[in-house]
Amino acid sequence: MIFGNARPSKGSAGSESFSQGDRTRRTILAGAMKIAACEGLGAVTIGRLAKKLRMSKSGLIVHFGSKQALELATLETARKAFTDAVMRPARAKRGGIERLWNLCDLWLQHIEQHIFSGPYFLTGAFFEYADQRGPIAEEVRRIAQEWFNALIKAVEEAQEKGEINPKAGLKQVACALNGLLLGAHSAYLLKHGDCWREARPALLGQLRKLATDEIPPSAFTSERNWKKHLQGRS
Amino acid sequence: MIFGNARPSKGSAGSESFSQGDRTRRTILAGAMKIAACEGLGAVTIGRLAKKLRMSKSGLIVHFGSKQALELATLETARKAFTDAVMRPARAKRGGIERLWNLCDLWLQHIEQHIFSGPYFLTGAFFEYADQRGPIAEEVRRIAQEWFNALIKAVEEAQEKGEINPKAGLKQVACALNGLLLGAHSAYLLKHGDCWREARPALLGQLRKLATDEIPPSAFTSERNWKKHLQGRS
Repeated sequence: MIFGNARPSKGSAGSESFSQGDRTRRTILAGAMKIAACEGLGAVTIGRLAKKLRMSKSGLIVHFGSKQALELATLETARKAFTDAVMRPARAKRGGIERLWNLCDLWLQHIEQHIFSGPYFLTGAFFEYADQRGPIAEEVRRIAQEWFNALIKAVEEAQEKGEINPKAGLKQVACALNGLLLGAHSAYLLKHGDCWREARPALLGQLRKLATDEIPPSAFTSERNWKKHLQGRS
Repeated sequence: MIFGNARPSKGSAGSESFSQGDRTRRTILAGAMKIAACEGLGAVTIGRLAKKLRMSKSGLIVHFGSKQALELATLETARKAFTDAVMRPARAKRGGIERLWNLCDLWLQHIEQHIFSGPYFLTGAFFEYADQRGPIAEEVRRIAQEWFNALIKAVEEAQEKGEINPKAGLKQVACALNGLLLGAHSAYLLKHGDCWREARPALLGQLRKLATDEIPPSAFTSERNWKKHLQGRS
């Protein structure tokens, strides 16, 4: 439970006042997310949000109690947006190498589709907080580990299905794929569109190196061929 | 010139007062660097620094004029530390694939040797500021581009020397190597030491894929063999 004490509990008010409070809370968090995604969690202050949303500071404080509770709730909103855009749709796909591809492909899509209005979530937050103490840093590490674990699990499943070389280290593969995505995101932010466009072919190249002969090598030669291959399996 | 107007110019005071001012300035920047490296540039405030260094706020302001000037000077100090630890020693080595290796190896070393007291510089700063406007964001992008350009130039030189496949895209190679380092750093911060230890073998694996037959494949099989190979060339 990371929302702080100020969150209205379900039993504490009539349903109408709860839903009104919930709407206000969502409006506040949407504003906080916009600021944080572009400028970092540190830029989310009660004063700035109150001005942006034309609310009183005291009206804001009622909903979050403290700056830390507001930051945690903003981070949790970012985690939820990432889960909805990347983790959940990938979980809905078939496990193994297909899910591994989908995790990475959806990760790239969440940049292309501007799920966050700026590049801070979740990489900037991770490199800012990874070595700090306290509840925000713990949550940031937990989110990063959750993503890393999803990659690891997909590699493991792909090995169990005989799609990926059983000798490949789970964490090493996860780390390499994660690095490929971070490198592509850096290039995207530096406006090197040619590198960004290479991200998916590079991803297929990595998967090809790892794959067993369960999958024909021609499947990895282009995104189109890969998608055809996946369609053929279903 | 990014130090703001408050920096004492050489002609404006006797050498003794300049050196005193310079020492104070360095003390302030060392304190600012420690805070920023662990918690981000946003955490560097005049008030917090004054308390940490037991100085008056007005005494601090004399040296930097504004929070932005202090942040820029802190960023410039970080850039200088990175240049001293990574860019300059790599430039001193032979160009081509050797410099490419050294750039990446020294990058990994700057993490291992805790050149910065936390992980914010320069990746966290990049993902926080890359999409923002203003002088800090510009400087952050400039530093990232400087690093990227150093990788690109080393790849280009390696191609000119016939060490790397001339068909390999300069930016694509730079992006892939940069990604490998970022992935390793993430793993390091998540305490996956086994992935971190794989960074240099993975780096040699990437170089092996790119290398022409100018370099015997056995050189890439371990860090030891690679260093032997480099020694044999000099």
